[in-house]
Amino acid sequence: MTTQIRIGIVGYGNLGRGVEAAIERSEDMTLVGVYTRRDPSDVATRGSDVAVHRMEALDEASEDIDVLILCGGSKNDLPVQSPALAARFNLVDSFDTHARIPEHFAAVDATARPAGTTALISAGWDPGMFSLNRVFGEALLPDGDTYTFWGRGLSQGHSDAIRRVAGVAGGVQYTLPSEDAVAAVRRGDRPELTTRQKHTRECFVVLAEGADPAVVREAIVTMPDYFADYDTTITFISAEELARDHAAMPHGGFVIRSGVTGDGATQTIEYGLTLGSNPEFTASVLVAYARAVHRMNADGQVGARTVYDVAPGLLSPKSPEQLRAELL
Amino acid sequence: MTTQIRIGIVGYGNLGRGVEAAIERSEDMTLVGVYTRRDPSDVATRGSDVAVHRMEALDEASEDIDVLILCGGSKNDLPVQSPALAARFNLVDSFDTHARIPEHFAAVDATARPAGTTALISAGWDPGMFSLNRVFGEALLPDGDTYTFWGRGLSQGHSDAIRRVAGVAGGVQYTLPSEDAVAAVRRGDRPELTTRQKHTRECFVVLAEGADPAVVREAIVTMPDYFADYDTTITFISAEELARDHAAMPHGGFVIRSGVTGDGATQTIEYGLTLGSNPEFTASVLVAYARAVHRMNADGQVGARTVYDVAPGLLSPKSPEQLRAELL
Repeated sequence: MTTQIRIGIVGYGNLGRGVEAAIERSEDMTLVGVYTRRDPSDVATRGSDVAVHRMEALDEASEDIDVLILCGGSKNDLPVQSPALAARFNLVDSFDTHARIPEHFAAVDATARPAGTTALISAGWDPGMFSLNRVFGEALLPDGDTYTFWGRGLSQGHSDAIRRVAGVAGGVQYTLPSEDAVAAVRRGDRPELTTRQKHTRECFVVLAEGADPAVVREAIVTMPDYFADYDTTITFISAEELARDHAAMPHGGFVIRSGVTGDGATQTIEYGLTLGSNPEFTASVLVAYARAVHRMNADGQVGARTVYDVAPGLLSPKSPEQLRAELL
Repeated sequence: MTTQIRIGIVGYGNLGRGVEAAIERSEDMTLVGVYTRRDPSDVATRGSDVAVHRMEALDEASEDIDVLILCGGSKNDLPVQSPALAARFNLVDSFDTHARIPEHFAAVDATARPAGTTALISAGWDPGMFSLNRVFGEALLPDGDTYTFWGRGLSQGHSDAIRRVAGVAGGVQYTLPSEDAVAAVRRGDRPELTTRQKHTRECFVVLAEGADPAVVREAIVTMPDYFADYDTTITFISAEELARDHAAMPHGGFVIRSGVTGDGATQTIEYGLTLGSNPEFTASVLVAYARAVHRMNADGQVGARTVYDVAPGLLSPKSPEQLRAELL
């Protein structure tokens, strides 16, 4: 057994809980503790023996932790926490505001580089595994088009929009890839498609007492931005069905690169995810990249990094020799 | 425009021709020349202005070439050529005898390391892109199973076996993933499957004059090793149909990782290729990895390497800043 990689979790919601679960399945890792802004006694971790600390405890803890996994939100938490903590720790975050990635990268690099830490930002599945497959696709088939489809997956923003409609007692919304659009891309047609043309919306709605289903349906399907321009289906269900059948957080989607080589041979690369739990899969990606970060730091690769900078073999607990012999 | 990466092609069959085509689509690369064991005047390249040299010309050429792409066979060519040429050139090969990869790696590393060259072995799609996805799958979902399916694709060995049957004037064989096996894996059943259970075989056969189709069919479907244990279908066609419909070299397949996270959420990762031309796609992978090899050598990363050692961003002609802003 090699020395264990010691992990700290910063923030403990669905994602932090998923990270704890993923570490349980990683024989080369140990969870040192959870760091939270809440009162530690209010945080119920999966494992009964996990140490839960106030965030301030990190001010003293750096020698016991090899890599921090940051599980806060991209809007308010990570823009502050990642640069601040990278000044003292190796870390991985799942910053997913695509448009602000260059800015976040620069802020993290500015503290990590002088400190000699390694800080990998924007790991997960999109950004993350989907980003990798967009680059692989473009590099292998330069004469081609890349298509990213999301779903079937629960959309939090659209579920919230449904719940604000008068006459609605509860509901969820799933985003689905449009079957026609997917079929055209898989055939190699290389169509031009907007995000709306690529996706449909599926709503499960619980009516408030006395509400008129026809009125509620009309209010939802005509809602600007959210539903009006999409192919939207609505199914009315009971509160019991909502609780029983729609509590999970499935998601997924795929990245398809369709291109030509030589004198016109059609080539298609497709990467797809079907996720029973979106936060648990994201957490699994963060944990694998934490392993890579630990190794890259030991190798002197310091500063901000993204998935594009990580040699894939570093994600595996197996040695390079094992990987070549068993999996190449 | 940055400085062009200067490529030499060693060996000019279907693969070498595919590499030439892929370089035509790569704005940052220039083809310096083709090196062949044949009489150069017998080699008709795609481009009319490509310099074709005898292999011996490589003894003097090293200053003009940044990376050699080796397009010979894994049985007889690459075990000799890759170690010999790595003593003087950066190179990429597509060595695909899975069982002998550790030995080939050691032989190439032994000459590349002291010479300060970078030599990436076993690039292509399997080994290559499929190998990468086997490692990603295992690293992200440690509690899971990996399934590799091949096809629909032309199998040279099985096509040869058909053509040796008495009464057969010509024919081809395609390997297909078994639909039932794929469905079970996609559902997350995690079945135990042998290669035979995962694949079916589809034969297109031209009968010799006077041959009895029933006898030929029986001889094929009962052939030990090749067909007896598979679900095999046989379609008799004319010589014209064989020439018209079966001259292309399609292939593909997929790598599926099916696993669980947390308290049992099912997670599935699927990477699939549908290739109109097997050699042209393999060539495209070799060319992208030649770009990475050039950069790794400039960065001081010398010795033998595999796809596991290459940070994905190095495959793209775009800068790290561009990749983060546009594709992450």
